[in-house]
Amino acid sequence: MSDVLKKTVAALEEARLNAPYFKEARLLPDKDDIISVLDKLQRILFPGYFGKSDEYFIGWTLADVRESLLKQISSVSALKGSDINAEDAVDKFISALPEVQKLLFLDIEAFFEGDPAAESTKEVIFSYPGFYAIFVYRLAHLLYELRVPFIPRIMTEHAHSLTGVDINAGAKIGKSFFIDHATGVVIGETTEIGDRVKIYQGVTIGALSTRGGQCLRGKKRHPTIGNDVTIYSGATLLGGETYIADGVTIPGNAFITRSVAKGDVIKVN
Amino acid sequence: MSDVLKKTVAALEEARLNAPYFKEARLLPDKDDIISVLDKLQRILFPGYFGKSDEYFIGWTLADVRESLLKQISSVSALKGSDINAEDAVDKFISALPEVQKLLFLDIEAFFEGDPAAESTKEVIFSYPGFYAIFVYRLAHLLYELRVPFIPRIMTEHAHSLTGVDINAGAKIGKSFFIDHATGVVIGETTEIGDRVKIYQGVTIGALSTRGGQCLRGKKRHPTIGNDVTIYSGATLLGGETYIADGVTIPGNAFITRSVAKGDVIKVN
Amino acid sequence: MSDVLKKTVAALEEARLNAPYFKEARLLPDKDDIISVLDKLQRILFPGYFGKSDEYFIGWTLADVRESLLKQISSVSALKGSDINAEDAVDKFISALPEVQKLLFLDIEAFFEGDPAAESTKEVIFSYPGFYAIFVYRLAHLLYELRVPFIPRIMTEHAHSLTGVDINAGAKIGKSFFIDHATGVVIGETTEIGDRVKIYQGVTIGALSTRGGQCLRGKKRHPTIGNDVTIYSGATLLGGETYIADGVTIPGNAFITRSVAKGDVIKVN
Amino acid sequence: MSDVLKKTVAALEEARLNAPYFKEARLLPDKDDIISVLDKLQRILFPGYFGKSDEYFIGWTLADVRESLLKQISSVSALKGSDINAEDAVDKFISALPEVQKLLFLDIEAFFEGDPAAESTKEVIFSYPGFYAIFVYRLAHLLYELRVPFIPRIMTEHAHSLTGVDINAGAKIGKSFFIDHATGVVIGETTEIGDRVKIYQGVTIGALSTRGGQCLRGKKRHPTIGNDVTIYSGATLLGGETYIADGVTIPGNAFITRSVAKGDVIKVN
Amino acid sequence: MSDVLKKTVAALEEARLNAPYFKEARLLPDKDDIISVLDKLQRILFPGYFGKSDEYFIGWTLADVRESLLKQISSVSALKGSDINAEDAVDKFISALPEVQKLLFLDIEAFFEGDPAAESTKEVIFSYPGFYAIFVYRLAHLLYELRVPFIPRIMTEHAHSLTGVDINAGAKIGKSFFIDHATGVVIGETTEIGDRVKIYQGVTIGALSTRGGQCLRGKKRHPTIGNDVTIYSGATLLGGETYIADGVTIPGNAFITRSVAKGDVIKVN
Amino acid sequence: MSDVLKKTVAALEEARLNAPYFKEARLLPDKDDIISVLDKLQRILFPGYFGKSDEYFIGWTLADVRESLLKQISSVSALKGSDINAEDAVDKFISALPEVQKLLFLDIEAFFEGDPAAESTKEVIFSYPGFYAIFVYRLAHLLYELRVPFIPRIMTEHAHSLTGVDINAGAKIGKSFFIDHATGVVIGETTEIGDRVKIYQGVTIGALSTRGGQCLRGKKRHPTIGNDVTIYSGATLLGGETYIADGVTIPGNAFITRSVAKGDVIKVN
Repeated sequence: MSDVLKKTVAALEEARLNAPYFKEARLLPDKDDIISVLDKLQRILFPGYFGKSDEYFIGWTLADVRESLLKQISSVSALKGSDINAEDAVDKFISALPEVQKLLFLDIEAFFEGDPAAESTKEVIFSYPGFYAIFVYRLAHLLYELRVPFIPRIMTEHAHSLTGVDINAGAKIGKSFFIDHATGVVIGETTEIGDRVKIYQGVTIGALSTRGGQCLRGKKRHPTIGNDVTIYSGATLLGGETYIADGVTIPGNAFITRSVAKGDVIKVN
Repeated sequence: MSDVLKKTVAALEEARLNAPYFKEARLLPDKDDIISVLDKLQRILFPGYFGKSDEYFIGWTLADVRESLLKQISSVSALKGSDINAEDAVDKFISALPEVQKLLFLDIEAFFEGDPAAESTKEVIFSYPGFYAIFVYRLAHLLYELRVPFIPRIMTEHAHSLTGVDINAGAKIGKSFFIDHATGVVIGETTEIGDRVKIYQGVTIGALSTRGGQCLRGKKRHPTIGNDVTIYSGATLLGGETYIADGVTIPGNAFITRSVAKGDVIKVN
Repeated sequence: MSDVLKKTVAALEEARLNAPYFKEARLLPDKDDIISVLDKLQRILFPGYFGKSDEYFIGWTLADVRESLLKQISSVSALKGSDINAEDAVDKFISALPEVQKLLFLDIEAFFEGDPAAESTKEVIFSYPGFYAIFVYRLAHLLYELRVPFIPRIMTEHAHSLTGVDINAGAKIGKSFFIDHATGVVIGETTEIGDRVKIYQGVTIGALSTRGGQCLRGKKRHPTIGNDVTIYSGATLLGGETYIADGVTIPGNAFITRSVAKGDVIKVN
Repeated sequence: MSDVLKKTVAALEEARLNAPYFKEARLLPDKDDIISVLDKLQRILFPGYFGKSDEYFIGWTLADVRESLLKQISSVSALKGSDINAEDAVDKFISALPEVQKLLFLDIEAFFEGDPAAESTKEVIFSYPGFYAIFVYRLAHLLYELRVPFIPRIMTEHAHSLTGVDINAGAKIGKSFFIDHATGVVIGETTEIGDRVKIYQGVTIGALSTRGGQCLRGKKRHPTIGNDVTIYSGATLLGGETYIADGVTIPGNAFITRSVAKGDVIKVN
Repeated sequence: MSDVLKKTVAALEEARLNAPYFKEARLLPDKDDIISVLDKLQRILFPGYFGKSDEYFIGWTLADVRESLLKQISSVSALKGSDINAEDAVDKFISALPEVQKLLFLDIEAFFEGDPAAESTKEVIFSYPGFYAIFVYRLAHLLYELRVPFIPRIMTEHAHSLTGVDINAGAKIGKSFFIDHATGVVIGETTEIGDRVKIYQGVTIGALSTRGGQCLRGKKRHPTIGNDVTIYSGATLLGGETYIADGVTIPGNAFITRSVAKGDVIKVN
Repeated sequence: MSDVLKKTVAALEEARLNAPYFKEARLLPDKDDIISVLDKLQRILFPGYFGKSDEYFIGWTLADVRESLLKQISSVSALKGSDINAEDAVDKFISALPEVQKLLFLDIEAFFEGDPAAESTKEVIFSYPGFYAIFVYRLAHLLYELRVPFIPRIMTEHAHSLTGVDINAGAKIGKSFFIDHATGVVIGETTEIGDRVKIYQGVTIGALSTRGGQCLRGKKRHPTIGNDVTIYSGATLLGGETYIADGVTIPGNAFITRSVAKGDVIKVN
């Protein structure tokens, strides 16, 4: 073994033992396990689409999902010194799945209705990255609401990586949501979105400024969007006090940092 | 097995049996198989780049591609009640591959010529996500033209996920096409693009409004782009009657909803 | 075997033997091997995050990384007729890793400080796509500086595919860099960026025009960014002579083709 | 490609097209699939031993076993021009599994009682190659009785390869069977064995002569063994008319070609 | 789901819940994990033969072996209600490995010296099934001596399956042991074997009778073999009081149930 | 890391650096690669049995086999200081394959004719371990004749492990060979066997004594068997001067150390 290698190993070992970033890293969740939970839930909630499925399959796989989540949540709670009851959280998550499935049915309809290029609802479930992003968001949001740390973000970042849609698990999104040409979309942590909202590629619903850094933690930093709003591609909506009223249409490339009422003219270019 | 699990399984089984979305889902194509067809065609059309290759390899693997496509198209045709002849479609697809390869050679040249950062044409084939997106589009478009359902979209969404470039398989794109810094690009279903067109990151060639939803099905909703057009990053071009004349350059971040003739001034900011 | 298949195989074999693109393709690096080097370095530089790790693991895996790089660099040097000494390059790369790790520690702090949604530095290392993009960039840049061909781009395109962030390995980026909501970001080859710079989704730091094509090779085509600059989402900065002074904030969606001094007003919309 | 390779390929292709052995080989069962059926049945019949198991698992996996067998039996029936009804055969096989399980429970007890080195019945199920051979034999015999071709032999040869115990699926073996130090054991096709028989390593229960070759097909060629017989290691028992009476003990290395009654002296060496 | 399937599942579920064999089966060791421990130890003790190896590799892999054994021994101790201290047992096992390696070096020499067909000691280590059987036996015996339940047998049965050599982990075997043409060999639990013993295929060193069944548990049931004994193929040696004196040669196919002194004539056939 | 681990690693590292057994071990062939060559040749020589096959497949896979063998033979020649020309040896091996295939066809017929339990020649090719052992032997013998070191033994030991049949690659075996109930069979290095010979389980054709050890290297130590000989189960034939005349039948369990002429009476028990 060369000297170069020996010296480098020694320096890296020094960092491993002393850098604060690596303490207790062993308690972090297993990313592959979380992603496999998403794959299993996709197969459970959309039987027949991603492999065969029957009642036995659903039962067996759901028990598996339960066990994985229990293990990962217990570990991550220890890491965070969190007081959540892992078993309780998992049971609530499992119990809520049929309700999530019903919400996703409404999203499917919104996608099909909204996109003339969609041949059928089957295509939406099977192939639409925007729908995949929402599927993952709705599950991650459930865990976020149950105050499970780390895992919701692993889920949404997985969807982000596959789709280019970055929805923070903390955002609140209503029924019948639709994202077309899903790519380059950002929806921040304290965003609130009403029902029947349509969003296109490149839309940002973000914070006005993050100069405050960690001091802004937990504050409302992102817009509130009413019902029946359409936001065309490339539009940027910023700020925690920005409110987009029911029924408003935001044109493409608009840059919005104030509230918009129904009927307001929005200048673009 | 806990009550929570049992109740959830019962509710999900209820949905599995009754929700209309799951009928005949078993006839959907196998996504992994379609993606593996793309991988095989990449290795066949660019011998040596993604693994060893000789005439025997090409023959063996092409027969494999043929078999996979035959199976998937037959299944999906049954699902759609389509009248296409699977064997005929596959043979036409296979026969057209050498022609597609020639088109891709022209694209390679366009990429190399267009990007000063490209060290060689090898780098384009091997590493450029924009080129990968076009490679997949040209194959998917072939199947789209043969009226094969579902499969073209699975292909383009796979490229979309890997590259952030969302080209609908229905779009018509001419020779020597070039996408630089491929990410966040959207090209809609009824788009028509001429020869020697260059497109940059974040460009949308989309519909003006989709309020009409499924009623717009099959209508021309996306722009027509002439020959020798350059569209810089972040530009948005919308509408089925929008025509960009030969030789026009669209500046970055432009928002275009009307036709542009050679010599027109385009305001940006 | 059908005639269709036979004819197609013959045509593709003809191309394989004669098209200039396929000469010496066998000397190209093995993409999977390069990506596995990235995975191993991630596990070495962030022990505990992506699997167990101790001094033995670091030593064993680093020797493995060394061997892979030696093989790939040797092969690719033969392809390019390059005069670089593969062994020398790899040793310099390995030796520099502890320094790269220290740079990444500074980036971690910048991410955590900059994002109120970040729960901890652990979450940054473990889940932030922007951090992954910088991790890969810093390694690829090291190889770029050592004049290793092809491999830096394979690395950055891998990060590009996973994150939507396209940083050319040639760009020079200072300390404590931060990319939020990493998606749709482009940073060109001759870009220079100072310390403590913050960038948001959809930002392009690109060339003004690439009409010159391969003639522009090696010329400074992309902006220079000072220290403590913040560039909000969707902004576009273009041109090799564009200089953004220390401390400037570029607003969202700005389209910049000239230098900006501290205090300049930047019009948006 | 070298001439050597080309010539060899041509000669082998010639054989492929013309040798009678390769006609319809594509209808042969898939060996890996058959072996995976054995693995699944082992996990179903001994829940907890070879992986987790609950009612859902049993249901899901048994449906899988059913589907594999249906496919393989259908294919192999076509090959043999057999008139068996694949669906009917599979249903009979599935229905008989609980009965087979009960037989195997008796075998487990016989193994534990018979071997002072056995720590527990768990060890028998988990680790005894002799028990594995009987487990496979009992399943293969069921299919043999249902006149399924090819598949019973694939099963018993799999056990043969793993254990060195070659029990032809046609043999009839009673309850509470025990094979110690399972290795080098041969039990021929027309053998009949009573209840509570114990057999040791290296025992052959075979044909006296096979000079007749295929003419002997279907004839009784192997011995009949009564109840409560013990056959020590290395003994050879040959011939279709050889009958070993109830309660007889065959000493090690004995070479038997005639019937043995209770009390007969058997010379060894 | 058919009635046949439902009925069978119900019957098997009934057995799963009630049959005594399945209680606590979840505490059984993980067979694949144990086998992977053997593979790792083979690579550690014979560096370079079964993959690359250096000090880092040995360290990393040995820590892995330690962890696997700790987990499996802890679980199996709970199952058996054993009072062994898992950590203590594993540490003793690890500490003894260099000594085992030295014993194996002597075995290697005995194999090479004993077999004119052996080209080199490398071939012995790399390819001789008899040597593999002894390698596994020496490790399993170490655990047996440490009173670890179940795991020694899993190890020796793995070797048994691969080689046809069934050495009970409880047997005591001296230095420089040699098994030629390893197949069909059985060495019982209470066997004692001296130094420099050579054994050929088909040799049994077994019990005279096992009629006593579980009552014989722990009793000396198998022969004692002195130093420098050679036992030719097919010989059978039985009984706990049978003693083979130093330097004796047992001819092929001999059937021995009494002690043999140096110079005794042994009749064969 | 515990002291136990550290001390053990140090001791094993000491052995790794100093024990003579580990010098140049890195030049040993890759066992998995050799076994995969066998799998590929099985699929090439018996098209359709172990996966689909056509001319393209044969060509592609044979080129692959050629490359693997070239690499392994080159490496192993360096290890042995052998003067064989790897390329030449591989080409001779490849060229001889059609001839080997024809020999195997004769073996297939012998198996089918000889075993009343065989349903068809297909079953012989697909499932008979004895036939697998001969298939491997004939390939290994080819390499042995070409004086390739190590690799023939790796091949035959693989067959030995799967079947319990240990045929040394140096043995010379004539046409139409048949092994029934293949298990526990040993055929030594200098054995010569004529045409149409039938052998049963447990047969040893071995050396009279190996007391001479390495001094016997290269000497004729094993019997010569004439044409049309049948050797029943458990028989042992020993010694380099032992000659079994044409047409002789050796009864089960016979122990033969002298030549046998046609008509000799052979005593058994």
